[in-house]
This record gives sequence, structure tokens and C-alpha cells, in this order.
Amino acid sequence: MPPLTADSLWADVLAVRQQQPLVHNITNFVVMNYSANALLALGAAPVMAHAREEVRDMAGIAHALVLNIGTLSPEWIEAMVMALQTARARGLPVVLDPVGAGATPYRNQAIAQLLAAGSPTVLRGNASEVLSVAGVQSATRGVDSAIASDDALHAAQALASHLGAVVCVSGATDHILAPDGRHARLSNGHVWMTRVTGVGCSASALTGAFCAVQADAFRATTAAMAYLGVVGEVAAEQVRAQGRGVGQMQIALLDGLQLLDAQTFKARLRLHHDE
Amino acid sequence: MPPLTADSLWADVLAVRQQQPLVHNITNFVVMNYSANALLALGAAPVMAHAREEVRDMAGIAHALVLNIGTLSPEWIEAMVMALQTARARGLPVVLDPVGAGATPYRNQAIAQLLAAGSPTVLRGNASEVLSVAGVQSATRGVDSAIASDDALHAAQALASHLGAVVCVSGATDHILAPDGRHARLSNGHVWMTRVTGVGCSASALTGAFCAVQADAFRATTAAMAYLGVVGEVAAEQVRAQGRGVGQMQIALLDGLQLLDAQTFKARLRLHHDE
Amino acid sequence: MPPLTADSLWADVLAVRQQQPLVHNITNFVVMNYSANALLALGAAPVMAHAREEVRDMAGIAHALVLNIGTLSPEWIEAMVMALQTARARGLPVVLDPVGAGATPYRNQAIAQLLAAGSPTVLRGNASEVLSVAGVQSATRGVDSAIASDDALHAAQALASHLGAVVCVSGATDHILAPDGRHARLSNGHVWMTRVTGVGCSASALTGAFCAVQADAFRATTAAMAYLGVVGEVAAEQVRAQGRGVGQMQIALLDGLQLLDAQTFKARLRLHHDE
Repeated sequence: MPPLTADSLWADVLAVRQQQPLVHNITNFVVMNYSANALLALGAAPVMAHAREEVRDMAGIAHALVLNIGTLSPEWIEAMVMALQTARARGLPVVLDPVGAGATPYRNQAIAQLLAAGSPTVLRGNASEVLSVAGVQSATRGVDSAIASDDALHAAQALASHLGAVVCVSGATDHILAPDGRHARLSNGHVWMTRVTGVGCSASALTGAFCAVQADAFRATTAAMAYLGVVGEVAAEQVRAQGRGVGQMQIALLDGLQLLDAQTFKARLRLHHDE
Repeated sequence: MPPLTADSLWADVLAVRQQQPLVHNITNFVVMNYSANALLALGAAPVMAHAREEVRDMAGIAHALVLNIGTLSPEWIEAMVMALQTARARGLPVVLDPVGAGATPYRNQAIAQLLAAGSPTVLRGNASEVLSVAGVQSATRGVDSAIASDDALHAAQALASHLGAVVCVSGATDHILAPDGRHARLSNGHVWMTRVTGVGCSASALTGAFCAVQADAFRATTAAMAYLGVVGEVAAEQVRAQGRGVGQMQIALLDGLQLLDAQTFKARLRLHHDE
Repeated sequence: MPPLTADSLWADVLAVRQQQPLVHNITNFVVMNYSANALLALGAAPVMAHAREEVRDMAGIAHALVLNIGTLSPEWIEAMVMALQTARARGLPVVLDPVGAGATPYRNQAIAQLLAAGSPTVLRGNASEVLSVAGVQSATRGVDSAIASDDALHAAQALASHLGAVVCVSGATDHILAPDGRHARLSNGHVWMTRVTGVGCSASALTGAFCAVQADAFRATTAAMAYLGVVGEVAAEQVRAQGRGVGQMQIALLDGLQLLDAQTFKARLRLHHDE
């Protein structure tokens, strides 16, 4: 395949804005509101539904499914399995965000249960989470990561091959790895994005929206992470120039998801390929 | 009854600010925070409680009950039925927001179960949701609506008569329909209000607060929708003039709910009656 | 012990920023997002987890535990008991926020069940809630309080002695009472802090973070309340000077939690001791 370009990624942004895909989220309580607002700002349509009685129907009308294990309980895992199976049967893209993988045995069991029910199209997490899912022991500390994304690269590539899924390791550098060996690196973003709860989870939600309009999940994931990264670094610069902080960052991120223009995106994008 | 005037609706705003009614919400996870903040900004007092073990007691001390089915599960439906029965027995106003009605069979069953337990005082939804509740088939797509509110008018009037409840169909034009045939149309608001999650749900919560201080539910609902509509259009103008987006819109809406003054409200109000 | 000083309290702020303690929250749905953002803004690391299957493990890796009963259900109470027992066994500080105590019998039972499982390190609530926990009858109205914090002082002191815990009664004046008779009064803050949902709950979450880095829970609680109080009054002044309202207040509070400097803190602090 030809290498990704800023033009091709921007085309995906425009496709989301135009097609307004319906993204079914089964996600954690902390970030539901922010993820919904991020999807709306981007131009997609969010729906949150978790009851075992309706997740199959909801996944049946959605254009993408996003699963996030941040605040689990047994009923939610069952519902995620049901929705995952429906989505896979329909050929719907599925994004899995293994929040806090490695933090507790229960989270690891939940991830194993989900992966046994079907591979996701994309798995996105920080280095600690990806290493944990890949079976490499690590001490996850809540939902943040003290491990550099670069250090999870080999495990992530092996995981991508094993799952047949795109694996995205987010961090100072975002790595996107395809089962066929493609590898994109993004060095946009700002550290303040880790000081607003739900930005990582929203990255997964946005990835779902991009996968709904772009069948190449590697490209879709790269577009989502690139877009959010550029939005985040522009927002951080604006907020800091105003003497404001991470509260305002939360709002500026949403503004940017709606308003970022092609020129800024293309001028700012720092995308590298390893083939 | 005499037609509604800007003065009478504003009197209801002042009554909410002064009486600070306690509004018991059993609502969805996505919008709980925003609904609580909207009620606080307006001057009302929110309480969220959903356990079957306490909803009867909470509905027993509240001044209004708001039910919203956005993120259902069986225990929540049971709790809503209990709270609804308590509220009806106490003569408390009840607002029902049938979020996503028509999207899944489970939501339709839930609505049927709630309506069997007792009619709400007010049912508020978008055109798609109201058509679904009225038994007219439609393809709801998540929680937004591709159908114009005007197209739900006949079904909404029939539903109002059938339920003996005020029915509000929100959209570019908000229609408020009373069982006795009164019909108010509001053409305030701004399309960006649909790009912030929970604004529709907050409209239902605010309607609960207005019903707590104004016994004529038709007037109370019109006041709530008018107030929110004017707040929303002023907020959108300010936000756009600043070059900001839907993130800032979310905040400006809350500011406006607190600070909107009588002069702006009366000058901006676009209220029409059909009798 | 020597009386608390602005310098000693500020040292605790710096310790939180430097040590970034992991705070495990089992809290209510309304405030989860805001509490997480408040902890992140402060410089701490939040994790929310409520499943009975993992709360023991999560409390086992955290530096503090915060329990908040705002939106209870039976499974959540069980999980809180489990986490509380684990935390106590580990010598971990535990903050209990008895939201809505006295509003329903169910909440009172839940509090009794939690206290039977182990005393918290700190109990923080408004006057109505503290009076209710202390066994003094009062009519709580949702989660706000119509009773002045001063009127709960005797009950709060008795409760502190009985529980062997620090009791904090928040209000126009914040009272912090230690089992050994120490009593600090803070008169910072602004009434708009009660118009943003979750500020009180965030006070409890922040108290958890301070207790994680400062073994004297009386000092830690005073530092948390002092910091939030100064942040709140500065934020309110800025927001009002801009002609903005409680929406913007919500954001300015988070900005302030991140950016407040030593000079402003020390100049603004209004701390009084009764010994």
C-alpha cells in the first residue's frame, strides 16, 4: 500500500464530518460524557447502551463499536461480549480500549474473555496496558502509564500479528502497528492531554468513528490519532498562552475537534513511516 | 385560558430561582453531571438516586421527578416504576424523556412498562422519539433525530390526548401540546445545542423544575423550553463571535442558565400559539 | 503539636504535586468525571473501580481510598465495605463522604454498614450530613445543606471522638476537628462553589490525595480544604469579573487546582485555630 499522507488522513476527517457515523460505546462511567462530546464535536453520532437486553440491537444499527473496560462489572463484560459478537458477525469495526490492563487480575480476565469472544479491529492503549495485554508483566498504576510507548513496540507488533488487529500504543509518540507490518509513528500532542480524564478513552471513541468511514483500519487509526494529536497540541498552546490550565484544556480540545482546519492539520502533522 | 406571554413565562423563571425546587432525577450516565449542573445553574436543586431501596423515599421528599431512559438496565426500569408510582400518588409532576425510543425493542418495552405504571405529566423528546412512543414506526438513530419536529405534530397531539399529558416535541421548532388542545410553538435555540450531549436531557430536567413551581404543566413546559432556547441562541452567538466551538458552548449554556436577564429573554422570545 | 501554618499546608500541596499519589475512588456517577479531573489538576492520579471482583486489588495498590455514597446500590455498598477493609488492613487513609445522609433510610443504613466495617480516617460532609451521621435528626434536602456549619460543631466534635477520625464540616466556614481536640477553621471559598455539582465530592477526593502524602490526617484535611477554598474564591472573582457564571466557574476551579501559586495561597489563607 502507498504510505499515508496528510492529504489522505484529512480526507478521512472530512468523511467522518460528512457521514456522521453512529458509534456505539460501551464505556466507563468516568468518560461517558466526555467521549460523547468528543464524538459530537468531531461530527460523529454517539450512542451509549450497556444493557444485555439491548446491546445486540444497538450494535446492529451502529457503524462502529467501542469497548472500554475502565469501570467494569460482570454484567458489563457480558454485554461487551454480546455486542462484540454482533459487531463481528456484521463486519462492523470494533475498537477495544483495555483501560488499566494489568492493574488487577479481574481486568486481565475481562480482557481474556473479550479477546476469546473475537478479535477487535483496533486495540488502543498506553504502553503499560499494551504490554499487559501482550502478556508481558508490568505494574500498571491506575490508568496512566509510566512506560514510554517506544518500549512497548516489540510486544505491540507481536500482539498485532497475533490478534490480526491494528494495535495503537499512545504516548509521547503514538505508534500504530498493522498485522501486515505497517508502522506509523506520530509525534504530535501535548503532555496536558494526560491531565484531562478521558482523552485517551476519547481517542478510542474517535478511532471507532474513523474506522466506520475508512475500511483500512491502520489508516483510520492513524487518522484519528493524528487528528486528536494536532488538536491537542494547538489547544495546549492556546490555553497556556492565555494563562489558563487543564480545565480550559478540556474545553479547548472539544472546540478543536470541531474546528481544526486542513491547513493547520497538514502544517502541524508529524507522521513517520517504518515499512 | 389566556395565551401565554413573555411576562408569564418569565415569572416562572423567577419562581424557580426563588423556590429552588428539589428535582429527583433517575437519568442516564452520560448526562447526569450536565443535568445536575444545568439545574444548579438555573437555581434548582438536583438529586440523583436510582436504587430500588431508596427511590420511593427520595421521590417522597422531592418537588418533581424526571425519568430518562438513556442508559437503561432492568433494575433501573424497576426503580423508575417505583418512583413514578410514588410521585403520582403524591401528585408530584413527572417528566419522562424517552431517549432513543424506537432504537431497540428493549427501549420500547421499557417505555410501555413506564406508561403502564402511570402517565407522566410531561413527555419530552425529539420527533423520532415522540413518533415512536406514539406507535408510529420510525428508525431512530441513537439519540438524535433526522425527522423535523413539525412532522410529529399530529402524532404528538394524539399522544397528548391519549396520555392526558403535555407532549413536547423539540427540534428547530419546539412544539408543546396540551391534552386540552393548547399548542405553543417556540422557534428559539441554535443547532449547536444538538452538538453538546445532554442538552435535550437537561431540557427535560429543567422542565421538571418549572413544573415544580407552576401547576399548569403546559405553561411550565413552555417556560422551560423558551428559557433554554433563548439561553442557547445567545450562547451560540457569543461562542461563535469568539471563534470558539461546541466545547465552549457547553459552558456558555450553563452560564446563560444562571445569568439570562428578563430584558434579553423577552426581546428574544419567539413564541406562537395555535388554539 | 504546633499549630498549622500556611507554610506547612503549602508543603503538603507540593508533596501531592511531586508524589502524585494514586487515589482509588468509589464514588457517585454524577461527580466521577469532575472528581477525576480535580485530582488530575491537583497533580494526583485518580482511579475509579467499583466491582466487587476487583476493589480489594485496586485498594491494594492505591495510596488512598475515597468512598462517596451519592448514588448507591447494594453492590456498591458491598464493594465499599470490601475496599474499606482492605485499606484499613493496609493502613491506607480512607475518606468517607456521606452524601445525602439523612435524606433516606437507605443512606443511613449504608453509612451504618460502612462505619461498622471500619472507621474512616476522615469523614467530610456538610452540616446536615454530619449531623445525620452523628445521630442528630435533620431533614437533609438532597445533597445541599440549609444548616450552617457552625451549628454542627458540637455534634462533629463528638463524632470525631467516637470514630477516632478527623471530621470536616464544610460550609461558609469549614471546620476540621481531630479526635484529640484540635480544631481548625477556614473561611475561604465562595458560595458559587455550591452551584457546581461535585465540588464537595471533589473536596473529599482531594482530601484523599493529601492524606496519602501527609500522615497527620488533621493537617492533610486542613490543607486540602484550604487549598480548594482559596482556589474557589480566586476562581469566583475571576469569573465574575469576566461577566461569566457557574459554567465557567467549573472550569476555572480546575485551572486553579493546577496553577495556584504559593504567594496567592499564603496571602489569601484565612485559617484559625481553636485549641
